[in-house]
This record gives sequence, C-alpha cells and structure tokens, in this order.
Amino acid sequence: MEPLLAVLNLIGTAAFAISGALTAIRKGMDLLGVLILGMVTAVGGGVFRDLVLGQIPPDAFTDPLYGIVSALTAFVVFLVLYFRLASFRSVNGPLFQRVLLISDTIGLAVFSVVGVQAGFDLHEGSRWFLCLFLGTITGVGGGVLRDLLAGDRPYIFYKHIYACASMAGALLCTVLWGILGETPSMLLGAAAVVLIRLLAIRFELNLPRIPLEEREK
Amino acid sequence: MEPLLAVLNLIGTAAFAISGALTAIRKGMDLLGVLILGMVTAVGGGVFRDLVLGQIPPDAFTDPLYGIVSALTAFVVFLVLYFRLASFRSVNGPLFQRVLLISDTIGLAVFSVVGVQAGFDLHEGSRWFLCLFLGTITGVGGGVLRDLLAGDRPYIFYKHIYACASMAGALLCTVLWGILGETPSMLLGAAAVVLIRLLAIRFELNLPRIPLEEREK
Amino acid sequence: MEPLLAVLNLIGTAAFAISGALTAIRKGMDLLGVLILGMVTAVGGGVFRDLVLGQIPPDAFTDPLYGIVSALTAFVVFLVLYFRLASFRSVNGPLFQRVLLISDTIGLAVFSVVGVQAGFDLHEGSRWFLCLFLGTITGVGGGVLRDLLAGDRPYIFYKHIYACASMAGALLCTVLWGILGETPSMLLGAAAVVLIRLLAIRFELNLPRIPLEEREK
Repeated sequence: MEPLLAVLNLIGTAAFAISGALTAIRKGMDLLGVLILGMVTAVGGGVFRDLVLGQIPPDAFTDPLYGIVSALTAFVVFLVLYFRLASFRSVNGPLFQRVLLISDTIGLAVFSVVGVQAGFDLHEGSRWFLCLFLGTITGVGGGVLRDLLAGDRPYIFYKHIYACASMAGALLCTVLWGILGETPSMLLGAAAVVLIRLLAIRFELNLPRIPLEEREK
Repeated sequence: MEPLLAVLNLIGTAAFAISGALTAIRKGMDLLGVLILGMVTAVGGGVFRDLVLGQIPPDAFTDPLYGIVSALTAFVVFLVLYFRLASFRSVNGPLFQRVLLISDTIGLAVFSVVGVQAGFDLHEGSRWFLCLFLGTITGVGGGVLRDLLAGDRPYIFYKHIYACASMAGALLCTVLWGILGETPSMLLGAAAVVLIRLLAIRFELNLPRIPLEEREK
Repeated sequence: MEPLLAVLNLIGTAAFAISGALTAIRKGMDLLGVLILGMVTAVGGGVFRDLVLGQIPPDAFTDPLYGIVSALTAFVVFLVLYFRLASFRSVNGPLFQRVLLISDTIGLAVFSVVGVQAGFDLHEGSRWFLCLFLGTITGVGGGVLRDLLAGDRPYIFYKHIYACASMAGALLCTVLWGILGETPSMLLGAAAVVLIRLLAIRFELNLPRIPLEEREK
C-alpha cells in the first residue's frame, strides 16, 4: 500500500509543520526559527523511530522531500500571519488556537499509525508490543520535541488525551492489522485518534490527577 | 551471571519509575503523565546506552517486561498518593522527599554498574573508557530525561554528588572487574554509589562553584 | 587530509567546551556541572551525527581524546574564573559575553564543515542534502543541547544568524567540495560561518519575526 503511506506521511508532515510553526510564532521566534521548529516537529518522531529501528541514516536525512515539504509549509504559515494578520485577529486568538489544535491532532493521528506500519514492515507482525510502542513514539515524538525546544511543558504530560488518543489509535491499528489488512487498519486507527481527541476536548474529559495546594508548580 | 543482572535491572527499573512518578505528581501531571514519566525515567538511560552500543531496537522496545514493570510501579505510586495521601501528609513533604531521594539513588547505583556491564559484555574488557562512559550515561540518563521533561533544572548539574557518585561507582566497578569478577564488582560499585551519595547528603559535602551576586539566574 | 580534520576537531571541541563551561558558570552550576556541560556541548553534535550515520558506538565514546580535551578545557575555564575573577570583572560582564560569543562561533564554524566532511566520507559525494543536513546538525547540535540542559531558550531559534551562518557555511563547503577539494572547501566554509555571524552581529542584521503585543511570552 505504498501510495497510501506516502500520502499519509505528507499529510502528517504538513500538519505537524503547521503546529510547529504556530508554536514558534507564539514564542516570538524569527523566520528561521519558525522554519526549523516546523521541520523538527514534522520529522522528529520519524527520526527517533528510525534510530530505534536501525534505519540509519533516518529517511528524513536522505530523502529531502519531507524536509522540503515541512519547511515550505512553515514558510507559508509565516507568510500568512505576517501579511494577513487580520484574518487571525491576534496571534494566540481563538482561530490561531483552533488551527494549532487541529493540525496537531492530524499529525498525531497520522504518525501514530505510520509508526505501527513501520513496526509490522520490519518484523512481520510478530511483535505487537514493538508496534504499539513505535506508533506512540512516532505519534507523540515530534510534539514532545517541539514543546521541549519551545520551552513549553510537554503537552503529553498534561493534556492526557494526547498520549491516550495516540495509544488507543495505535492499539486499534495493531489489533485490526491481521484481520482487516493494512489500509483499513491504518485509516481506522487514525480516525480513532482524531475522534478520541475531539470528543475529549468537547466534553472536557480528564484523567485523574492529585490535587494539592501544597503541590509545587 | 544472568540472574543477578536481571534482578538488578528490575530493581533499578522500579526505583527510577518511583522517582519519575513522584516527580510527575509534584508537577501536577495527570495519571497518564505519571505513568509515562515513570516509564521514561526507568528505561531512558538504557535506551540511550543501547543506541550508543548499536543494540537496535533497544531492549526496552522489544521486551515488554521493563515497560510493564515501570508502568505498574508508577501506577501503584499514583494509587498510594491518590487514596492514602495522609501517610505522606503533603506532596513534597519530608517523607515524599525522602522516598524520591532514596528511589533515585538506588536507580542511579544499579544502572551505573549495569551500564559498565554492557560495555564489558560487548568489548571484552578492552575499553575501560567506554565502560566508564556507558556506566555514567546509563546511570544518569533516565534522571536527566526526567528533569528535562518535567521542566526542572537537571539534578546532575547542581547536586554534584549525583554524577560524582555515579562516576565513582562505575570507575570502581570497571577497575575491580578484572580482579574480582563480574558479580562482586557490580555489587561493590553499586554500594559505592549509594554510600557516596548518602554521605554527601549527610555531611552536606559540596563541590566548589563560583558565587557571584551578578550571576544571572 | 587527516591532520587538518584532527586539528579542526580539537579546535571545535575546545571552543564549544569553553562556551559550555561559561554557560554553566552563568547558571550557577558547580564544578562537575561545569565539566559535564562543557563536555556535552563539545561532543553533543558529533554524537548525534554519528548516531544518524550509523557510526556506532560514536567516536566520542571510544576515543577518550575529545572527552579529555573538553573536560580539561572546561576545568581551566573554571579555574580562571574561580581564582582570577577580577580580569572578567563580573560573570556575565562584557568580556565574559565576548569570550562566550567567540568560542561559540568558532565551534559552530568548525563543526559545520566537519559534519559535511563526515557526509562525503561515507557516501562519496552523491548526497548533497545529507551533507548539508549533517553539517548543520553537527554545527548546531552541541549548542542546542547546551541551551536545553541549561534551561535557556535555544539560541538557534532566536539568534537567527546562528543557524543561518551554519547552513550557509555547510552549503558553501558542500558546493566547493567537488571543485576545490577537501581542505580549501572546509577552510572556506568555516570562514564563511565566522564572517556571516560577526557581520550580522556588527550590523545587527535580523530576520523578520511577527511582532505582536498579544504574543504570549
């Protein structure tokens, strides 16, 4: 299913590049900072996955495609906000936040199942644990890197639905793989990630945490 | 000495999972954040060591054992603090701090010598520098990752005794390896880490630093 | 051109070790923190490059030379500031800042072309994209790691000239490689990095960024 994988990879790359670029703009980085954070967010999860799998050099370093797509995407984002700022009213306004959230969710969904695919590709379905792990890491890796580099508290630890959704989608994809085959599993897994995340936000679902006044910030 | 290595790995994994989970709770992360930070702290040093050694995919990704042990440990920590908070009085109180310190010290001690072992395992004792480096990295890696992800200043740079103790233990283990053999070297090395760290805290030993009012925080 | 490469590597290692040590001192780290941040800054970019290239274990872990040179350099920096503080007037004063800037620039310049060399070394000039990427990563990697570990906002995203200069030098080196050969390409590429950075600082050149009052810090 080569074409599907290529299309998913491009969608995920562009989506994460948007989320990285918007984060960079929110932090006051300059043009090059916006490009770099867009690229790092887009390829970060994949590079880590490739290192773990022994796919060396990682795809992102030998195939310029993903680097170019993510840099161009981030550049367009910069231009849009630089010249037509009015449409966003203000950086960090509601529209800005919504685009950031949606692009981040799409990137998370796509890369979660792309990671599962990489696991099956290598080990012929024998290692479900590896597939699940790879899916989650590929999915959340770029975002964690983005948050770390931007000096934010990583989403993954506070917006629980983030990692939860990635894991659920990767698990669904892994389980369905042997039953429905590659394409339906990946599409359903990605859809599950988007659905879970949006439902959680809509209904403000939260995992428990330990609430304490004495807790240090 | 397979059984010893397995036992040490499990002890180190559980201890670091506790320290990661407590750090996550102190930072107000939710349940999944607590599980993930526990797992990352527990397997982080080992994953980095495996990447450096070319052990790909790293053990932690193919063998579910360590992931499951660390997630379960972190979950138990969460439950204990969630339901019987009284015994800790307050998050970040003295008991909380003591458990955090002790679990962190045990993890540091165990992984410092496990890292040395991995070096000897691969290169038959010829590269003492590699062994020493691997020991320190495996020992401190999980903690540095924990602090970075939690937004803390990494312990390793401020609580000097931290890295000092790991290096001393790894060095002792490396030196003794050819004389006493594997098991005694690892046990003595780990004991040295614990001893140095506890003595340093007890007597408030400190390495010199440059004290300046003008210093930027 | 082995000797040139060795000399460049040593210069870059010492320069980045100085910048790491000064950053650690500015952050109030203790002696061991200064040594470790000096070492990490000096070898960080190279370790990441080696991981990406499959040069495992990375050179820095098997050849003690660079670890020792960087630790010694950082130690000398610590001694100079500890005992003859007067010559710097104050940590973070103008002289301090200038030494930090210059050492950082030299490290950036040297490692940018060393990274390009590693790419050509492996793949016989066929992959210009890989060479450019490797140059930039090797150049900026140590500094990004330094800033992350010290809790600073990574230079690379805000002082645009930083990554810009590294990329320009790596690109120049890559382009000239086939025409002028190894040595002149590397020297000219490194010179370009230094020149661009110093000119940018002198004339306060800046890349555009999106200026907004509503922007969140």
